[in-house]
Amino acid sequence: MDRADIPNVGPGEPAATIGALATPALLLDKDRLDRNLARLSSLMGRQGVVLRPHMKTAKSIDVAQRIYPSGAGPITVSTLAEAEYFAQHGFRDITYAVGLAPHTAERAMRLRKAGVDLKVLLDSREQAIILGAAARAAGVTPSAFIEIDCDGHRGGLTAEDSKLIAVAAAVAEAGVKIAGILTHAGESYGLCAPETLEAAAENERAVAVAAAARLRAAGHECPVVSVGSTPTAHFAEDLTGVTEMRAGVYMFLDLVMHGVGVCTTDDIAISVLATVIGKKPEKSWILVDAGWMALSRDRGTATQRVDQGYGLVCDVAGKIYPNLIVSQASQEHGILAIRPGSTQALPDLSIGAKVRILPNHACATASQHEWYNVISAGSDAIEARWPRMRGW
Amino acid sequence: MDRADIPNVGPGEPAATIGALATPALLLDKDRLDRNLARLSSLMGRQGVVLRPHMKTAKSIDVAQRIYPSGAGPITVSTLAEAEYFAQHGFRDITYAVGLAPHTAERAMRLRKAGVDLKVLLDSREQAIILGAAARAAGVTPSAFIEIDCDGHRGGLTAEDSKLIAVAAAVAEAGVKIAGILTHAGESYGLCAPETLEAAAENERAVAVAAAARLRAAGHECPVVSVGSTPTAHFAEDLTGVTEMRAGVYMFLDLVMHGVGVCTTDDIAISVLATVIGKKPEKSWILVDAGWMALSRDRGTATQRVDQGYGLVCDVAGKIYPNLIVSQASQEHGILAIRPGSTQALPDLSIGAKVRILPNHACATASQHEWYNVISAGSDAIEARWPRMRGW
Repeated sequence: MDRADIPNVGPGEPAATIGALATPALLLDKDRLDRNLARLSSLMGRQGVVLRPHMKTAKSIDVAQRIYPSGAGPITVSTLAEAEYFAQHGFRDITYAVGLAPHTAERAMRLRKAGVDLKVLLDSREQAIILGAAARAAGVTPSAFIEIDCDGHRGGLTAEDSKLIAVAAAVAEAGVKIAGILTHAGESYGLCAPETLEAAAENERAVAVAAAARLRAAGHECPVVSVGSTPTAHFAEDLTGVTEMRAGVYMFLDLVMHGVGVCTTDDIAISVLATVIGKKPEKSWILVDAGWMALSRDRGTATQRVDQGYGLVCDVAGKIYPNLIVSQASQEHGILAIRPGSTQALPDLSIGAKVRILPNHACATASQHEWYNVISAGSDAIEARWPRMRGW
Repeated sequence: MDRADIPNVGPGEPAATIGALATPALLLDKDRLDRNLARLSSLMGRQGVVLRPHMKTAKSIDVAQRIYPSGAGPITVSTLAEAEYFAQHGFRDITYAVGLAPHTAERAMRLRKAGVDLKVLLDSREQAIILGAAARAAGVTPSAFIEIDCDGHRGGLTAEDSKLIAVAAAVAEAGVKIAGILTHAGESYGLCAPETLEAAAENERAVAVAAAARLRAAGHECPVVSVGSTPTAHFAEDLTGVTEMRAGVYMFLDLVMHGVGVCTTDDIAISVLATVIGKKPEKSWILVDAGWMALSRDRGTATQRVDQGYGLVCDVAGKIYPNLIVSQASQEHGILAIRPGSTQALPDLSIGAKVRILPNHACATASQHEWYNVISAGSDAIEARWPRMRGW
């Protein structure tokens, strides 16, 4: 037997239509993407705030070019591999919004040395010293944001922390330019009422502005006041004193964002195409070939008012089957079932029938796939295949 | 500025030592791997049962060659991309243990046409007809397992299902060779007492043997009686009538398998290397650069007696910090904290310090990474970098 007879491993030729795709496969509706991009861009334009999209959700130069059709603009990244990837594709104004360590400081300074205006993040004297040393070794002047904690979600110093001015002094002393302050209202993902979301946005703004004011009062420059999360970006009523907004999942949106109240299910731009591979009528189950490997293990809606299981099921054209969810997932199997408490009938789907599954968490689901199959609303055609980058 | 100055995107040169690795990074201890492989191989040898390892966990030819150092042996796969990958690397005896659909039937028959003895799985007359048509179109004789449901976990027909003999007849009528019956005791992952695990293994065996007996009594051949799950593989006391065992996660093991009682934490062969990037002493938190992107969203221990959060934390040499877990995870951040209820002190770790995180679910965590950094117990050296395949 000739090994050349064995089909090649790899993506193969792009499929022409949704019906011709091998499943599971990630679909990206570019019309919905464009609509989501335009919505937040318009909101931020009205507020006079720079939008610095977080590319951790899409990890795709094609999506970035959809955001910036006439040339690279400011972006946020979650890994230095993303920074290198987008820099290779011409992006120069990049914020790496994860706290610095020695190995990332060195790697970030190599990018800076190559002419990329890469800003890094820190919240301690230790990190300022590490960054200063890496910058001196590379022969560059680094630029760092001081991370501010606005809601107890993760890292950063509170605006009133007694260490804030000492950290700023350590940054300056280490020869590092203070880019500004940066905060993230991560706790807003757990909210669902417009009033509390507006309050979270106002808190994020107020804390950021207060921290910037403290730095300035201590004699430091603080040109950028950077805030951001998809929920607060959409619910902020006033952004006075804020200069830029970061958001990522707003591009695609997802069931968690729907549960928060940021969007309708019709706004969700990505879905996982799956095929029916079995039926268990005695249990009212339909088995599909999308398990957690295709959907991710994310169960972000489990703590929301409506638990969507591992995803909400639509027909192949994208129309939701009311109350049909992926109730269980193993590695390559999903079990479709009617939501507990509903009397909805299970749709009659044959072996080989295709469905689309809306994801709980777009960042997590997209990361399980190597590329986006790009479609337009109402069409069966696959218009493009946009690769995703991954790794660190 | 010359784009050539920007560091290349991609894996770069392999690191020589654990200390030189960019983090997060996946470590694979080959001594623990070998010990886990030898343990189950020896158990199955004593039972006189063929072990058909499930490659969905490792997705690596290097791991497969560790299992079969002197040439390819029988394997199980969860995707046809895995089947093609292992076939390209010389494997010929492959079972694709996920239910068949039209597009996978055609693709599977192309592999069969290329000389790979690829067995497929079905549990319905519809699938038998689909497979027969695909096989005729390809000019090959297909071989299929009939899936049996031993514990209500997922797909398959029960051993006493009235449709079982009709499906076997449809398979034969479609010109398909019956490879045998195949079942998976998926519910065993939810157990934790030796007696119930032994009972689950005996139930899996008894159901499989009963189904095979019904097929044979109806005049069908049923050469292979295939069972398997890592818990039942380790707790089976008697496998009379069973001809082969499938298991996957046994290679690496993980915290879920530890919670089930299959292994000790010292048997777990993979871990995620992470770096300290922040500290929140007022909350007793340490922040590391391994979030769910590096660890996966799997929370499989949440329903076990001991909830390990997103993973159990060890020092860089692999020694467990008692009660230190990844209590929360966002995309690229993990929060280390002492397990609720424990009075253990938080270790004193500086920015840049490295830790290793034992995963809840080896299949899910490994799938977040592009390669294994191969180490030996007690050594700091990276001995090899073994790539993983992915996709469908």
